[in-house]
Order: sequence, then structure tokens, then C-alpha cells
Amino acid sequence: MIAAKGYAALQTGTVLSPWTFERRALTSHDVLIEILYCGVCHTDLHMIRNDWFPGIFPMVPGHEIVGRVIEAGAHVTKFKVGDLGGVGVMVDACMECEDCRNDQEQFCQVSPVQTYGNLQKDGTPAYGGYSNLIVVREEFVHHIADTLPLEGVAPLLCAGITTYSPLRNWQVGKGHKVAVVGLGGLGHMAVKFAVAFGAEVTVLSTSARKKEAALKLGAHHFVVTTDEEQFKSVQRSFHFMIDTVAADHDINPYIAALKTNGVYINVGMPAKPWSIPSFSLAAGNKVVAGSGAGGLAQTQEMLDFCAEHNIVSDVEVIKIQEIHTAMERLEKGDVLYRFVIDMSSL
Amino acid sequence: MIAAKGYAALQTGTVLSPWTFERRALTSHDVLIEILYCGVCHTDLHMIRNDWFPGIFPMVPGHEIVGRVIEAGAHVTKFKVGDLGGVGVMVDACMECEDCRNDQEQFCQVSPVQTYGNLQKDGTPAYGGYSNLIVVREEFVHHIADTLPLEGVAPLLCAGITTYSPLRNWQVGKGHKVAVVGLGGLGHMAVKFAVAFGAEVTVLSTSARKKEAALKLGAHHFVVTTDEEQFKSVQRSFHFMIDTVAADHDINPYIAALKTNGVYINVGMPAKPWSIPSFSLAAGNKVVAGSGAGGLAQTQEMLDFCAEHNIVSDVEVIKIQEIHTAMERLEKGDVLYRFVIDMSSL
Repeated sequence: MIAAKGYAALQTGTVLSPWTFERRALTSHDVLIEILYCGVCHTDLHMIRNDWFPGIFPMVPGHEIVGRVIEAGAHVTKFKVGDLGGVGVMVDACMECEDCRNDQEQFCQVSPVQTYGNLQKDGTPAYGGYSNLIVVREEFVHHIADTLPLEGVAPLLCAGITTYSPLRNWQVGKGHKVAVVGLGGLGHMAVKFAVAFGAEVTVLSTSARKKEAALKLGAHHFVVTTDEEQFKSVQRSFHFMIDTVAADHDINPYIAALKTNGVYINVGMPAKPWSIPSFSLAAGNKVVAGSGAGGLAQTQEMLDFCAEHNIVSDVEVIKIQEIHTAMERLEKGDVLYRFVIDMSSL
Repeated sequence: MIAAKGYAALQTGTVLSPWTFERRALTSHDVLIEILYCGVCHTDLHMIRNDWFPGIFPMVPGHEIVGRVIEAGAHVTKFKVGDLGGVGVMVDACMECEDCRNDQEQFCQVSPVQTYGNLQKDGTPAYGGYSNLIVVREEFVHHIADTLPLEGVAPLLCAGITTYSPLRNWQVGKGHKVAVVGLGGLGHMAVKFAVAFGAEVTVLSTSARKKEAALKLGAHHFVVTTDEEQFKSVQRSFHFMIDTVAADHDINPYIAALKTNGVYINVGMPAKPWSIPSFSLAAGNKVVAGSGAGGLAQTQEMLDFCAEHNIVSDVEVIKIQEIHTAMERLEKGDVLYRFVIDMSSL
């Protein structure tokens, strides 16, 4: 076993506290990573509060991890000591089921292991990235270019792939009018990717004050959805829409802003079920699509794309001791656009 | 004006009565059709009851029309007197908006005219196919092959295109496992098309007694959804699903029967909005798609496909005087699979 330290929620809903624990020993296919940066995802907040399902406590959150390989198992071929490595929302899967064979390991139905909040295959809890060290099966560690600022790369492992994946899967690009709903951690990455893919991008937001920031990120247009006239002016106008808002909201007015054959993609995953009349989709052959993170191959593709196009997340780097304040601010949407913990502060 | 006769609902919710009325005079681009057969669609029932929105009364229902051209306007080039012609759910549109230019005239936002229940461009009510005659702009009349039994062709104009269109748009075919939910007027056409396109077809139904009929239509498998074990055995197993059930029902168990990236297509259009948790779609990148009829070009394509592959609707031919009994039976799902009115009975 490997002695590790980090910050953990000792019980659900509690604030995080410094905590020492043990990581499993490396198998021959694992690497040991010294964590340099870890992003603070809205999921972390949901998970320590059991918002979606009961978690396992103590819980060490964090699934936007960038670090350096400091030890490699005997049969590891993908990494050598000293390499950079990135870890996202999952750390293991069966690798044999239909989903795993189709590069959709995030949906493995046999033995999926999320980065934290569930059990590893050996039966011990998986602990996330608010920590100094992590042991991960090599296939689940991604190569990270050394040309980008690492603190901006960390959020790519969740916010990045979560927005990149559906935009790629739906082949969003040149000639498409794309709306991005919400401008937080996910939304700002969706804008960057949609722009990089050649689409004409409009940010839809409830707060007029985000206009300047949206345009600075590369968005071509900005619409305040609480302004009835403005929102009405974009009805039936988008080929695609990616909704990144985590708060409950009526999605039908957004569906109405799609052209015929338009696709509404949700990655915000609000807690309350949507209420959708069948007419809302039938009139115009419209589509509501879900999307959950991305597979291993696509995650590496996204990281390579970001390195090539100089794309990172806009971040506010914090010390781990500032995590409470950061989570309070995250909850209010008061961050441009992602908190990232500098793990040297641990 | 042209004197016509038919059956009409004189007020909402009333039974249909014989009724004489006037059709508009032909313009130079119109044809006059002597109606031979008209299908009885579930929409007709909804419309005379104002289930979806207030209609215009007296209302002559019917939008699955097959007949013969008996007069053609001076500039008509598509038809000559004596030709067969078919009319579906729409009889006019602006032909200039984005949807019309994209062969999606059914979604025309400028001046769409449904076959009945709304106003024509000249401000007079549009009357449907439960009638001896109809005047229609030539572009909205489809060529009908003389090789198929005409009574079986009539329902293709609505039930046919409504199921053909989404299956084609989503490129359903060889190598796909497709589920058809419900086995009525729409469902039995969905089975025929999905089988003709080369898919492996499973009918999902609440009534075990429909098994033999489903297999006879060409379905490869049959699953009774009220049998928990049976329904569970097909979880995560379909690439596509087309749900034809008009009654309200929880669609989430059906979405759970889709594979990763699976597409749930709804054409049943139940009255009550769906309640869909975001997780239901995110876990597996799943899609809920609406579909409304089909455009003019695709409707002709469908009719040509049916002629080539010898596909018609299975029908029970009635006299128009039997319409009340037929509608009562339709409501109970007691028809294999479509009532079609022989208009010579009028």
C-alpha cells in the first residue's frame, strides 16, 4: 500500500478536511502519478452532498487530474517515469463489453470504476484527485503535451471532454449555427470548441453581464434569454444547441430556438426530470440528446486537439486550503471559469 | 365553386353526418380529384374532439386520400385527366421559406395548409377526404402506381410517410436492431418498412395476443413489455426504437432498452408531456427524436418504394355509413390495421 494525503469529505455534506489514507499498491499495469493540478468540478459538489446517489465516505473528490508519472508497473508500455499524465472521470472498466470495445468505456456495464465515489475492482474505495498521489491503470491515463499551461489542461479531463465529445459526435462544424446555453466551466469550453470547429456560435445566457466575456472567448453573438424580444428573435435559428446549465429550467423554449432537424444536447444534467410535450419535437423533427463524458480514445483525441490549437480552460488557481471558499463561490457561479487546485499547496 | 358532398362533424365531438358543401374553384395550378378511398387516421378522432387545439367546424376529416384526376388547371404539368393521385396531410405551403426549400414543406412557417382543420390561403376552410371530391395544388398531389390495391395505398399517405420518414432520415437498415413499440396503423407500417430496409425487427407490445400478427407482418421477434422478465431481457439491445403508441406511457423504460448511442423516435404523439430525467439520456449518449410526417419529395419516394417492394397497408374497407362504428373500434385498437372508406358508398 502507498501512503497518500489529501482533502476528504468525512461524511456527506461536510466541509472537506485534510486526511491521510492509503492508495492500493501498483499492479504491473498501473502507474503512480504525483498530482500537480486538480480541477474543481460541479460534480464534486453534487457528490459530497449525495445529490445523485449515496456516496462512499470518506470521499476524496476530484476527476480533472494532471500530474507526473513517478513510478510505472513492470508491464507498463504507455508511460515512463517523468512523463506527464492526465486522469479524467474514470480509472477502470472491463475492456471487453460492447461499450468498451466501441471506445465507450465510460458506459461499461460490467465493471466501471469512476475516479472517486465508488469501489475499485479490488473492493477498496476509489479516491479522487484532491490528493498528492494516485494509482491508475495505464490505459486510463492520457498523454499530456508539455506545451500548454498544466493548470489550464486539468479541466479538459472532464469539462473539456464533456463538451468536445457531443460536438464531435454530432459533427458540429463549418456552416452550423450553434447555441451554447450557460457560460460556466462547461459552457466556456463548449464555446472554445465550437468556435475551433468552425461553427457560428451564439451564447444564450440569463445574465446580460456575461456578454463581453462570451465575445472574448470567441462567441460571435450573445443573447439574453430573459429579454423576451431578444430570445424570440433567435427562434428556429440554430442547427445545434449545447445546454450546460446545471440548474433546473424549462428546456422547451430552447428547443423552439432550433431549426428543423435541430439537435438539443444536454450536458448540464439538472436534477429534475424534463417535461417535454411530443409536439415540441415532432414539429420540426427535433432531437434531444444526452451525452456522458467521452471514451478513452476520444479523450486523448481532445487533448491532442487542444495542444494543436492552443486550447485550455480559463482557470483561477487556488491553494487546497481555499477549497471551501472556492466551492461556495462555484455554487454561486462566481468563477471564470474553473477553480484548479495547485497541489503543491497540500 | 364546386359542389361537393361528404361526412362532417358539424360541431366538436359530434358524430359525423352527411353534409354538402362547396370546394373552391380550380386555379390554373390545381387538380380536381374524384376520391376513391380515404383512410381513417387516429388524428381524425383527435381533430373532431379538439384534443390538440380548437378546430374549424363543420369539419370534414381525412388525410389519407387516393383518387383519380378528373380535371386539371391550365398550367398543370404533373397530371393529366385520368391519372391516379394521392393526397396526404398537407395541401399547400409557401414553397419559399427555409423549410420549404429544404423539402420539409410539412413544417412551413409562413403559410402551411393542413388537409383539413385549418384555412386555405384564400381564407376558406380546408375540407378533408371523407368526401367525393377535392381540389389540390398539383405539387401536393402524389403519383400513385396502378399496380397496388388502391385501398391499401391510401393509408401510406399518412401512416406510411410518418413511419418511413424517420426510419429513412436516421438511415435505419442492415445491421440495426430496431424495436417497434405498438402494433396499430403506424406500428404495422413501421414493421413493414424496417424489415424492407434490412433491419432486425422486434415488436414491443403490451398484449401477448399480437405476437402471431407481428411475426406475420415480418417482425423477427416479439416482446411482451408487461412481462418484466421478457422486457428486462432486451435492455440495452436496440440501435433504434420507433414508438407508435398514442396513449400516454412512461418512455424511460423504453429508452433503457436502447444501446449506447441508441435513438428513440416518437411518432405516437401522446397528449401528456414526457418526464425524462437527464441521466436517462446521458448514460449511453441516448437520443429522443420527434418526427412529423414527411416532405413532398420524400412522400413520393415512399410511394415509389412501396410500389417497387409491393408494400401496402393492411386494411379493413368500410362504407362511409359505417364510420361511427369504425371510430369506436379504432379507439379501442380493434382494427387490423387501418379502416379505409370506399368512397363509392357515399
